[in-house]
Amino acid sequence: MFRGAEVGRLLSDDDFKAVEPELRLELVQAQQALRDATFPVIIVLEGIEGAGQREVANLLNRWMDPRFIVTRAYTHPTDEERERPELWRYWASLPERGKIGVFQRSWYERPLEEHARSRSDDARFEDALRRIAAFEELLTDDGALILKFWMHLSQAAQQERLERLQADPLEAWRVRPDAWEVWERHPHLVASAERVLTRTHTAAAPWFLIEGADANYRAVAVGTQVRDSIRSHIQRSASRERTSTETGSAPALAHQPTLLTGIDQTPPASKKALKRQLREQQARLALLQRRASAQGISTIVGFQGWDAAGKGGAIKRLAEAYEAHEVRIHPIGAPSDEEKAQHWLWRFWRRLPRAGHAAIFDRTWYGRVLVERVEGFAMPTEWMRAYTEINHFEDVLVEHGIVLVKLWLHITPDEQLRRFEDRRNTPWKAWKLTDDDWRNREKWPLYERAVHDMVERTSTARAPWTLVPANSKHAARVQIVRTVADRLESALCRASAG
Amino acid sequence: MFRGAEVGRLLSDDDFKAVEPELRLELVQAQQALRDATFPVIIVLEGIEGAGQREVANLLNRWMDPRFIVTRAYTHPTDEERERPELWRYWASLPERGKIGVFQRSWYERPLEEHARSRSDDARFEDALRRIAAFEELLTDDGALILKFWMHLSQAAQQERLERLQADPLEAWRVRPDAWEVWERHPHLVASAERVLTRTHTAAAPWFLIEGADANYRAVAVGTQVRDSIRSHIQRSASRERTSTETGSAPALAHQPTLLTGIDQTPPASKKALKRQLREQQARLALLQRRASAQGISTIVGFQGWDAAGKGGAIKRLAEAYEAHEVRIHPIGAPSDEEKAQHWLWRFWRRLPRAGHAAIFDRTWYGRVLVERVEGFAMPTEWMRAYTEINHFEDVLVEHGIVLVKLWLHITPDEQLRRFEDRRNTPWKAWKLTDDDWRNREKWPLYERAVHDMVERTSTARAPWTLVPANSKHAARVQIVRTVADRLESALCRASAG
Repeated sequence: MFRGAEVGRLLSDDDFKAVEPELRLELVQAQQALRDATFPVIIVLEGIEGAGQREVANLLNRWMDPRFIVTRAYTHPTDEERERPELWRYWASLPERGKIGVFQRSWYERPLEEHARSRSDDARFEDALRRIAAFEELLTDDGALILKFWMHLSQAAQQERLERLQADPLEAWRVRPDAWEVWERHPHLVASAERVLTRTHTAAAPWFLIEGADANYRAVAVGTQVRDSIRSHIQRSASRERTSTETGSAPALAHQPTLLTGIDQTPPASKKALKRQLREQQARLALLQRRASAQGISTIVGFQGWDAAGKGGAIKRLAEAYEAHEVRIHPIGAPSDEEKAQHWLWRFWRRLPRAGHAAIFDRTWYGRVLVERVEGFAMPTEWMRAYTEINHFEDVLVEHGIVLVKLWLHITPDEQLRRFEDRRNTPWKAWKLTDDDWRNREKWPLYERAVHDMVERTSTARAPWTLVPANSKHAARVQIVRTVADRLESALCRASAG
Repeated sequence: MFRGAEVGRLLSDDDFKAVEPELRLELVQAQQALRDATFPVIIVLEGIEGAGQREVANLLNRWMDPRFIVTRAYTHPTDEERERPELWRYWASLPERGKIGVFQRSWYERPLEEHARSRSDDARFEDALRRIAAFEELLTDDGALILKFWMHLSQAAQQERLERLQADPLEAWRVRPDAWEVWERHPHLVASAERVLTRTHTAAAPWFLIEGADANYRAVAVGTQVRDSIRSHIQRSASRERTSTETGSAPALAHQPTLLTGIDQTPPASKKALKRQLREQQARLALLQRRASAQGISTIVGFQGWDAAGKGGAIKRLAEAYEAHEVRIHPIGAPSDEEKAQHWLWRFWRRLPRAGHAAIFDRTWYGRVLVERVEGFAMPTEWMRAYTEINHFEDVLVEHGIVLVKLWLHITPDEQLRRFEDRRNTPWKAWKLTDDDWRNREKWPLYERAVHDMVERTSTARAPWTLVPANSKHAARVQIVRTVADRLESALCRASAG
């Protein structure tokens, strides 16, 4: 696979000087056109040490306007990073739409290194590559252009380079202490790299193999590819017709029974008994959380529900069981402009809890398939794709060991009306009731359909939905705290068993 | 000082129920008015354990709209937090304008705890309080309303509370393992608290002493104070007239000599010699940085300079001396909306480097006293205050052990014109030249005056300015890399000596 990149391609200085001016200009123009486009460009530079990853990154910054380029390189994760799923730190620095991100030592680095050093077996390696492919697909589905360059050197060329640097007192510092060790592993790295390139090469996120021995050649090869890819991606994305915003909810389907039909709203006990049960469950959760905190097990609780279903009150009762510094409540409203300039899941990634902590989301990533679907803020292709994106996202969370609880607080339309009227008539509650609430109420059947689809498509064995009858606030609160405690208890159980 | 908060103040349930509805309503109204105002509210809840800090935080969230309240509590810092100045983590979660931030265990916690446990001597304690006062002043100068509540319990009341909780199986979990130890330290904590309250009580950031034994009383006391303070702060900030945007640069002063007058632009060596020196200095810096990285010494390099002074090229030469993952380049342009909703220094705090890493700022916080001053984006009171704010900010950085290098790249007007024309005539450089550049050029004398004032007011012994003659790009690059290396070398020297 790599022999084609060991043939000694090179470009003389004169040839380089002849092509550079025009290439630079065209790159600058492509970058300017990109700024008006609505997608980010992600450039991944991987390869053999010394094949020019750093030099190419520098050159791209020199040739184009560096204010619109984000360059990142990664080393061992910090403890904040280790406490989140591995992709967290890459999410944190993805380029915004209209910008270029250059990643040296990217998400490929750890799986590649580990496999090349035989630290991870094939199954684990394939699993990592599968996750990476899903990550990249999610970005390219959102419009991102991903260009991945494997900068190659033969083992002989790598050796020659190291010897040349060591001989020059001004360059010797570039030879890192472990450089010769890395050189020895060359054949293993190449074998692992071959698997990476075959498994993760897709039309939307292709790999390009670049011979890295000659500085002129590799610069022009990468620059030309970047120029052409940006150009054609701009054309493609401009010609892609936005499909209609028809939400696909045929009115005839509105009166069919759904997963919400016939949920039993009878409170299981008296109000007094429920209040006592709530305190018992809070005490139980508090003690479980103390163990979870010590063991570094995190919890994410996502609340969705009808307007006035009692999310706020339930969240407070739940949060009371945690130490204040261990829990964060994230109300999810309209995204900020920094958030709008990223993939829609980005704002949830940035709020993932630390090890042993809990994050409570007051409304969640499911807005994509609820309000954005019903109100037409997301196109059908977008919200239909979101089910898969959400399942993948939650899979990564659960895989990382996070306890994920998803709650739908269900009330009947009559109960909602009663609560709306109560809010309207109680001065210090009136702010809770907005015109939006009345408008949403009129769309009850559309929302019910969306909830049905959501539960159907995203209630998985690893990340199930819990439908909470909430006509009785007290019963709902007990069930919610108990559900979180139950799930945490079994995670603790699994952790001590494993 | 605390005897007034040990007198047994309480409110019966009936009295509480009588006042609560109106208080709630007024708090909600105050919060709504706040959302249209242009300042944040910061509520600090400190005090004796069990005096209701958490309950009051919950109640404020229940009484008001929690979507516009950020509640934070802190415990031991993470390694990412330890690697930055102590205030970094508080900066990271300051509320935006129009929102309320509730801080339990705030920036007061560590100094207070350490002093109460006699871990820090008086000088260190006073020093911490001085830094806190400067931090709060910077926020209140920017319009923030800071309300600090000391929730108090006598030692006897604290004992009674712990015994009561322990006796109730449903409440016993609230007694933390170290609760009785904390109880024993009560007198020490109160002594330290007295000093905190006297040193950091200001008109703009006052302390309120609240007796915390009775839940009804403390809730109404805090709620009332929050309501009144927000109300009157809105009135005050609305009546505060924005002063004129006159920049104070009398034209008569424009032709006086400045610190930039007569900077010697003669290159100290031939181009060839300079190129070699650059490589030598890069190698030197790379080796120094390897030691700095191992010892956790961070570097911040701030670049300012005339348009076309060669910042970009110099930054690249400097960055080449670092491992890619150890250096981040931050181009500073217009702030995002998340940044605009915060104190103007917030966006620099969020970019502070980790221990052992380097951050290079392509334009810096000095924009406040340069472009914002000259173009009238900041009012005179704002940019004049900024000198102090900047000195304080840099003092915190240097105190934390960060190597801070501030560079002004100076070229003559003739040289600038030559470079502008070169850019205009070179296709791949044309993007670098904007209409703004020509406009700024016309204001040269105003900018020169601003630079003079900036250097005069902010070149301190701990954070000096370096004026770099940059008519010769090669000479400038050598001087820049050498300056950073020199400063890093003396920091390493100090670190090994201390």
